[in-house]
Amino acid sequence: MKRADRLAAIVQRLLERPGQLHSLTQMSEELGVAKSTISEDLARIRQAFAEAGLGRVETFAGVNGGVRYLPLRGEATIRAWAEELRALLQQPDRVLPGGLIYLVDVLFNPLWAQRVGETFASWFHAQRVEYVLTVETRGVPLALFTAWALGCPMVLARRNSRATEGSAVSIHYASTGSDRIQTMSLARRALPPGSRVLVVDDFMRGGGSVRAMCHLLEEFEAEVAGVAVMIATSVPEEKEVPAYEAMLVLEDVTESHGPRLRLGDRFREG
Amino acid sequence: MKRADRLAAIVQRLLERPGQLHSLTQMSEELGVAKSTISEDLARIRQAFAEAGLGRVETFAGVNGGVRYLPLRGEATIRAWAEELRALLQQPDRVLPGGLIYLVDVLFNPLWAQRVGETFASWFHAQRVEYVLTVETRGVPLALFTAWALGCPMVLARRNSRATEGSAVSIHYASTGSDRIQTMSLARRALPPGSRVLVVDDFMRGGGSVRAMCHLLEEFEAEVAGVAVMIATSVPEEKEVPAYEAMLVLEDVTESHGPRLRLGDRFREG
Repeated sequence: MKRADRLAAIVQRLLERPGQLHSLTQMSEELGVAKSTISEDLARIRQAFAEAGLGRVETFAGVNGGVRYLPLRGEATIRAWAEELRALLQQPDRVLPGGLIYLVDVLFNPLWAQRVGETFASWFHAQRVEYVLTVETRGVPLALFTAWALGCPMVLARRNSRATEGSAVSIHYASTGSDRIQTMSLARRALPPGSRVLVVDDFMRGGGSVRAMCHLLEEFEAEVAGVAVMIATSVPEEKEVPAYEAMLVLEDVTESHGPRLRLGDRFREG
Repeated sequence: MKRADRLAAIVQRLLERPGQLHSLTQMSEELGVAKSTISEDLARIRQAFAEAGLGRVETFAGVNGGVRYLPLRGEATIRAWAEELRALLQQPDRVLPGGLIYLVDVLFNPLWAQRVGETFASWFHAQRVEYVLTVETRGVPLALFTAWALGCPMVLARRNSRATEGSAVSIHYASTGSDRIQTMSLARRALPPGSRVLVVDDFMRGGGSVRAMCHLLEEFEAEVAGVAVMIATSVPEEKEVPAYEAMLVLEDVTESHGPRLRLGDRFREG
């Protein structure tokens, strides 16, 4: 096998399963070259990816060592995605009765779910995330691709506990600005105690659902590694969660002009 | 840029967004070589992938032409995944009260969702699938990765219509073997008339939910391109749908021995 083909084969392996650790020993056996050759190839790939902002190639030494690829993106790429998403969501025909926005075509489009997931992974990978949590239903694609990009599992809080999930921990909470009591539950076996968890959701107004997820995590003695939402509203300014990152902020929705959004505060720093 | 680096860069582009069409013109500009050189590189990558059973590299001629990668897997790879999944699900501690199986850790693990999605994509890509449909909630990760692997959108049927999805079409149906009437709805704007749709679900007993999805598709004048489930039960043998493909078949569940599964009928052909 020529070097060009070997490099292509290694890139293929790394990219098809982000976050998964690949053994150098196994790779050297499968590709029929010495481990030192694989290491040299990886150094070259790592540098090429770093230069092009294509994500991170991480190597781990030791008996259980190996290499993994994380599709972490640079600031410029993420900003371009946020701008494109903003333009897509500002289409006037997205306005629904009640000042709501039609979002499901975007949320359930794998291309956008993957981009948003890679964005959240890029923002929070340094927080040693072990699980990604969301509550059903619309946030599932974003949480799933965030977990995919980080190479960790996702866990799903349900609106009602289900027989198919065994014993569960349930909490009750009031929706922001209303007296309606809602329930949220998570299977007892979904999360080992002490886990570090990234909380993900598609849309945040007051932050009640996200706060409920954080509260639920306390019951599992889990740590909140961060909170990431695709869209937060500008009003109310004070959310029920102390800190979060939003890709976009919804300023207002009018039937004549459509939704008006701006980039999240994180993009101001740059 | 040396040929080895260029091949690696092309593989990276193809794999990071399965199903998406990449323009040869754009690729040649970005990599700074002639289109004919890119074409030669692609021919080499296509052959290498085909030989290793790593999926399909498709090129399209013409003004809107380009190249795309579909992560379609060979029979041997899919069988190995099915065997591994079977072993994982046969763990005795998966049995829940009522003869149910704990599955959510597998369904919401991106690694398994991706493998199952690639399996369904491999089985049905020849059916010209334009959308992948599932009903909330547990089937979402499988449907999402199936759509991802096919490069098409997914659409989600809800148990109740939602204000956030605008006007919707709702149907009512009886669960298999029960008189309980259930509702299923799909946003009117989710699906253009005449679409070809692959129906995906995680678990099928009588087939009532899947039949309801097919019924819902009739309301959209859509065609059913196929039905794919991760697990079908062996009883009842007659399902409410005429044809489907299952990765695994659940024979029985006992608390002493755990779930007993076999590979789906499709694997017998080989």
